[in-house]
Amino acid sequence: MSLEEFSSNYGDVTLNELQSTADPKAGKWREAVEGKEWTDVSDLVEEMAGSEVLIRGRINRLKSSKVLFLILRQSGFTVQCVAKQSEETDVMIKYLKQLSCESFVDVIGVVVIPKDPVKGTTQQVEIQMRKVYCVNKALTRLPITVEDAARSEEDIEKSLKDNKKAAPRVNQDTRLNNRVIDIRTPANQAIFRLVCHVENFFREKLLSKAFVGIHTPKLMAGSSEGGSAVFRLECKGQPACLAQSPQLHKQMAICGDLRRVFEIGPVFRAEDSFTHRHLCEFVGLDVEMEIHKHYSEIMDLVDELFVFIFTSLNEKCKKELEAVGKQYPFEPLKFLEKTLRLTFEEGVQMLKEAGVEVDPFGDLNTESERKLGQLVLEKYNTEFYILHRYPTAVRPFYTMPCADNPLYSNSFDVFIRGEEIISGAQRVHIPEVLEKRAGECGIDVKTISTYIDSFRYGAPPHGGFGVGLERVIMLFCALNNIRKTSLFPRDPQRLTP
Amino acid sequence: MSLEEFSSNYGDVTLNELQSTADPKAGKWREAVEGKEWTDVSDLVEEMAGSEVLIRGRINRLKSSKVLFLILRQSGFTVQCVAKQSEETDVMIKYLKQLSCESFVDVIGVVVIPKDPVKGTTQQVEIQMRKVYCVNKALTRLPITVEDAARSEEDIEKSLKDNKKAAPRVNQDTRLNNRVIDIRTPANQAIFRLVCHVENFFREKLLSKAFVGIHTPKLMAGSSEGGSAVFRLECKGQPACLAQSPQLHKQMAICGDLRRVFEIGPVFRAEDSFTHRHLCEFVGLDVEMEIHKHYSEIMDLVDELFVFIFTSLNEKCKKELEAVGKQYPFEPLKFLEKTLRLTFEEGVQMLKEAGVEVDPFGDLNTESERKLGQLVLEKYNTEFYILHRYPTAVRPFYTMPCADNPLYSNSFDVFIRGEEIISGAQRVHIPEVLEKRAGECGIDVKTISTYIDSFRYGAPPHGGFGVGLERVIMLFCALNNIRKTSLFPRDPQRLTP
Repeated sequence: MSLEEFSSNYGDVTLNELQSTADPKAGKWREAVEGKEWTDVSDLVEEMAGSEVLIRGRINRLKSSKVLFLILRQSGFTVQCVAKQSEETDVMIKYLKQLSCESFVDVIGVVVIPKDPVKGTTQQVEIQMRKVYCVNKALTRLPITVEDAARSEEDIEKSLKDNKKAAPRVNQDTRLNNRVIDIRTPANQAIFRLVCHVENFFREKLLSKAFVGIHTPKLMAGSSEGGSAVFRLECKGQPACLAQSPQLHKQMAICGDLRRVFEIGPVFRAEDSFTHRHLCEFVGLDVEMEIHKHYSEIMDLVDELFVFIFTSLNEKCKKELEAVGKQYPFEPLKFLEKTLRLTFEEGVQMLKEAGVEVDPFGDLNTESERKLGQLVLEKYNTEFYILHRYPTAVRPFYTMPCADNPLYSNSFDVFIRGEEIISGAQRVHIPEVLEKRAGECGIDVKTISTYIDSFRYGAPPHGGFGVGLERVIMLFCALNNIRKTSLFPRDPQRLTP
Repeated sequence: MSLEEFSSNYGDVTLNELQSTADPKAGKWREAVEGKEWTDVSDLVEEMAGSEVLIRGRINRLKSSKVLFLILRQSGFTVQCVAKQSEETDVMIKYLKQLSCESFVDVIGVVVIPKDPVKGTTQQVEIQMRKVYCVNKALTRLPITVEDAARSEEDIEKSLKDNKKAAPRVNQDTRLNNRVIDIRTPANQAIFRLVCHVENFFREKLLSKAFVGIHTPKLMAGSSEGGSAVFRLECKGQPACLAQSPQLHKQMAICGDLRRVFEIGPVFRAEDSFTHRHLCEFVGLDVEMEIHKHYSEIMDLVDELFVFIFTSLNEKCKKELEAVGKQYPFEPLKFLEKTLRLTFEEGVQMLKEAGVEVDPFGDLNTESERKLGQLVLEKYNTEFYILHRYPTAVRPFYTMPCADNPLYSNSFDVFIRGEEIISGAQRVHIPEVLEKRAGECGIDVKTISTYIDSFRYGAPPHGGFGVGLERVIMLFCALNNIRKTSLFPRDPQRLTP
């Protein structure tokens, strides 16, 4: 092959070629890929040795000695591509060397099994490059690098020990400011796939139990369930607000005979608190269902559903969990096949015996919750449990009081690793009782008349619960910040990107 | 059995019993249901003849002659329960007669096969009532009745013919004002299950093709993609707005290497227009994906995805489609196994040949779209087709112009029964071209700098599309109003219930 002929084996793809041209002769890239299929990097395995493949990915890294090494990355997966120096490849290698990291390239090459195992790539084959085309160029200097963003604390400590100088650490805020680059790290690629899996498992189990997925409105007249944490706006001259939960509408769906419903959708809270576990917008997983005679029917579902989600994550998402653990090491969640249930009174007693005095008719604060989590772990060897029969005083007005003692209610919270993740209860479905409870809680009954009226047209006993999707993966993987499991998080200080 | 003993066989369930009491002796209902399982009305079949069942449902209707007939309804399913007059049952029948329609009752009775087929119920067995308890009472006078709300136009016409007086027709607005009752009709029970099925089929197909489900924020700094149809609000002192689509963030997810993403979530449009097909809030089904070389890859997906959805609806949702058709008769959607693709130019030509002149570089109005739908149906025998290569001038600035003619773009719309349902395109992934296009469209580049910057860090060729979930079922079932497929619709005049 002449040098001139070889020059058609590399170069920049032209805009015209990328505009979906149908002309196979539009350019050298277009000609080179004609009739070829692309192979995913994650599919490159030893069985393919000897065959030619076409792959697209980002330049993760370029190294050159006698041989040019191009580490190609696609999602979290990497493969080493090589070009040996020769008279022919000389100009191609020069061309490659000037390409910036994160640029997209199409590589046509042959799969080979290297003599020594490749270190630092996920795939254990190598690609001998025949042709390389740059599909899209990244800026030479990026605000953060994927390499820095992917570094674990352990690696940073190691670099300090080895080189007397710590390798760069990208802080949470810088990550979020450059989220488009940050989410390219193997850990983040895994996290957002895990979030999707949780949603899938959640839906799968509920659909198998005759639940119907619904969508309730986020734009509400007036001020939602009230309170200060409401985003207010104006709709065509009317005062309106964003739903703080699908509570009222999911109950109305039950009054509308949908019997068992779930909703997955955004929930808006104008929180002032800037904590590791609160967002102004998160994805709510909400459930509401008819019950026949006892709120334990709801806890039975929580039990079965979450044991199914955790088990499925462990069984079906091994690669993703491994990728997360590599950057953020964590111990697998300890949970029982049959979820532990304690009453609030029993919890208070356990705390008391451990020297922590709490108000038996008040709520637990974050610290007591953590402490109780520890005690439960020691005594029952589980980091996932249900605490039920909460004091009526600390639950919303629509919570059904207990039959035997109105100071307690048919409600529950669920904890993972000492943090509350689920809140649920049997609801009051009798309008007169609902009105009375609202009054006792200082709520003007007139402002919620549509809601209360829904129960006048015949309503079944029912209950439900709500979970934050981002919290499930945060706590399952013991991550330290809810912003790590929200793709583009929103908090009191952040509305971008 | 003495009359006194028999009196434990009927009556109102007490509040105490409904508060999840654990005491099996708490009341006569609690004692009667102890150890029993509830059977769904839809599960009552002839094979169960002779066995005793416990069922819960609403009183759909009460009729009495020598025998008392109680039609019990659960979701869209109905069964006839009977009590023969006797000395014993006399008081029970009196008790039953005073119960209001839509009240919930628990019936314990024996399944029998009636001599004559039962008319007007979905189940073909009868229940001989032994015990009946009222779980919850509905008001005696309801704002609308389920019977009226479930009546078809055909039945109304028939009543006029038979009785010289039309049976009541519940108009759309009254339905929505009393949505909790309205959604109890068999047609509505079916519609909201169909909506859920569409979502399930959509997810199933995309997940099988390595798509990742994501959630992007609805709270945005500034003013979204701009335009007047934006809901504005304030977030902690900052101007903000509600996302009009996940467009920018789904593209950023692609720049973040998620490769193929979909999102199902609310989309907010501060529409002024009050039409049969627009809502201020609807559920968007959004897709964005890397493409290798041609935007036809996106159309291929649309084709496969929607043919799958339509086929699955027809095969797996027969009962639901039948229930809808009973109240709102419709012809099954005509679609091809391989979806027809026409270019915009071809569409314009077809219209021209039919005597309809349209601007070859303008958009089609609703009327031309309908007309073209008719022409396509006549010529190709399909009510579902793709129209692609739209004029660049009528598409958003981020649409990729065609390689061979910049006046056309790599974009498409998809139509069902003459109405646009999907809009999609290849996007401009090159920041310089994007800036130029934004400028040409009169958009201040500074206001979308975060978006444009996302493409500076390396971006793959990509594209996607968006669909309104409510429109899919509306058009598949040829319903005349989008409000029929939205559980609690929001339009310029409606923010409640």
